[in-house]
Amino acid sequence: MTRRTGRRPGNPDTREAILDAARTAFAERGFDAASIRAIAATAGVDPALVHHYFGSKDQLFLAAMNAPIDPGEMVPKVLLGDPDGTGERLVRAFLAVWDSPAGAAAQALLRSAVSNEWTARLLREFVTTQVLRRVLENLDVDPGQLPLRGSLVATQMIGLAMMRHVVRLEPVASADPEVLVAAIGPTIQRYLTGPLPT
Amino acid sequence: MTRRTGRRPGNPDTREAILDAARTAFAERGFDAASIRAIAATAGVDPALVHHYFGSKDQLFLAAMNAPIDPGEMVPKVLLGDPDGTGERLVRAFLAVWDSPAGAAAQALLRSAVSNEWTARLLREFVTTQVLRRVLENLDVDPGQLPLRGSLVATQMIGLAMMRHVVRLEPVASADPEVLVAAIGPTIQRYLTGPLPT
Repeated sequence: MTRRTGRRPGNPDTREAILDAARTAFAERGFDAASIRAIAATAGVDPALVHHYFGSKDQLFLAAMNAPIDPGEMVPKVLLGDPDGTGERLVRAFLAVWDSPAGAAAQALLRSAVSNEWTARLLREFVTTQVLRRVLENLDVDPGQLPLRGSLVATQMIGLAMMRHVVRLEPVASADPEVLVAAIGPTIQRYLTGPLPT
Repeated sequence: MTRRTGRRPGNPDTREAILDAARTAFAERGFDAASIRAIAATAGVDPALVHHYFGSKDQLFLAAMNAPIDPGEMVPKVLLGDPDGTGERLVRAFLAVWDSPAGAAAQALLRSAVSNEWTARLLREFVTTQVLRRVLENLDVDPGQLPLRGSLVATQMIGLAMMRHVVRLEPVASADPEVLVAAIGPTIQRYLTGPLPT
């Protein structure tokens, strides 16, 4: 085991109580309305302890849902570069996560969301507030269209994950990532910045 | 209850034995390699009885997986009309099924496919042999590209179903079907007939 420095893992029971309270709060109230103060109260700890263990509300959310990646790190890299290539870069980054060892955790999350309404809510909050919001706030498009654009992107991405990794439909299941980037990138690009029905 | 004429439902135990044998055969060997003769042998009945109860192999397959629709009836309607509108018509027909009472059965199938490898195989066979094959054999494109085109269509369609009906991400979850037809139709059209990476 590597030795962790800085923030300590803390008492496992306390951590678990905080994560339980966080899952409930995020699923019931949504990410934006859930407060660290209320989560701490439910877990019977001081809010400062929540910050001490988990850092920001974003970090607490990622820990609560066992997120395989931190979109706060990934998304800025996707946004760097030619705006017309954002679609392809998003598909490439998405496949890199799903095809990596972290993909197993992502798959588990997807499977759980399908059978469990609470995990579905957490997944919805994750997609919306952690991924799409970060991507969309950097686009030069009508703000009123952002929710539709974001959820269209989500339909194509989650369907790609489903067919490649869960249903395993060939040739998508075994295709070289760059074939999928070239085929699906333009779809994502159109959903992000192309003309949409009004 | 309405009175059924023509083919009778038959002995429920025998029907169930045939359907069990069919599910096993279709999942293990795939639709094309599974034979009515072998399914009948596993169920301990005469092949003629399988035909008598279920009609064709297609019909037996649809019954075995509780398919909410018969693509053999739906797909020809989608293919009628302007070839450039096939994508939109496919999205419209797909949403009409999922938004109808039959959508509950489709959702159950999707949920089951995510947690059960055997249902995933049946779903894969269904999508490939009952839906995509019928659509693709009518397209005027390079036959070598048909499998990739078909599975790309499947990624977008299954993702639309997931986000609209399972994860229920807004605004896709509540959008007017025609908004989704206009937004997603061109994606399906490009996957069907547009230029693809080679």
